Amino acid sequence: MAAERFVLDQRLEGDSIKLTRLGLCTLRLMNDSRWPWLLLVPQRVGIEEIHQLTPLDQTMLTFETALVSAALKEATGCEKINIGALGNRVRQLHIHVIARNEADTNWPDPVWGFGKRKAYQDDECKELRKRILGKLEAQNI
Amino acid sequence: MAAERFVLDQRLEGDSIKLTRLGLCTLRLMNDSRWPWLLLVPQRVGIEEIHQLTPLDQTMLTFETALVSAALKEATGCEKINIGALGNRVRQLHIHVIARNEADTNWPDPVWGFGKRKAYQDDECKELRKRILGKLEAQNI
Repeated sequence: MAAERFVLDQRLEGDSIKLTRLGLCTLRLMNDSRWPWLLLVPQRVGIEEIHQLTPLDQTMLTFETALVSAALKEATGCEKINIGALGNRVRQLHIHVIARNEADTNWPDPVWGFGKRKAYQDDECKELRKRILGKLEAQNI
Repeated sequence: MAAERFVLDQRLEGDSIKLTRLGLCTLRLMNDSRWPWLLLVPQRVGIEEIHQLTPLDQTMLTFETALVSAALKEATGCEKINIGALGNRVRQLHIHVIARNEADTNWPDPVWGFGKRKAYQDDECKELRKRILGKLEAQNI
């Protein structure tokens, strides 16, 4: 019997835009211009918690999270990175990596569950995408 | 010159209770009975972001986070673990590991920044501490 194929949760798919594929995760940009906000989604079936991943996958996830976090900090010059794995609404494991600044919406409280999503303009999205991918490439992945 | 000694941030110290020391992190219980809520604080000086840790420390942190997360899930039988590294208020790197349930305070939104802390009663705190440490020990650390 063939292994079950990974399928991205429909809500995550609708809320975000694909940037690239890393070793373990798909990297996506949340379509919410209030904060530069990335999603890492491990391409594994039926996983809800980080501790359910194999030790190797956990290590890969850590590596990819750190890489993306450093790239996002460089790309945005933000004050602080917020990392979270919540999954209260969408159970498929996904890791949030968000650029925060002292003047941003809802600082210093978290972004999750706050107010309404504000979609990007096309050119704004393209520019941010290019900037983030440029910083990722500069890190030799 | 001697290396600078790690000192726990005063706010983290005031808000939480020491449970034990792991390899990299001190494990603490947030003194807030609204949710079973643990803190992992890497014993490293001057670190604010996970990506600033060495690759070995990142791997240790992942291992300890997964261990604590699995133990907390077993100890509480919770629906979902929430993991977060925010640091918007306290910059010293610390990782939150929280047991969440569909009936709990502020579900499905995050715990951070919500309402007022409700300190544990002594016996309630002792009982939870014992239960969590028991599950950690059962994982052979």
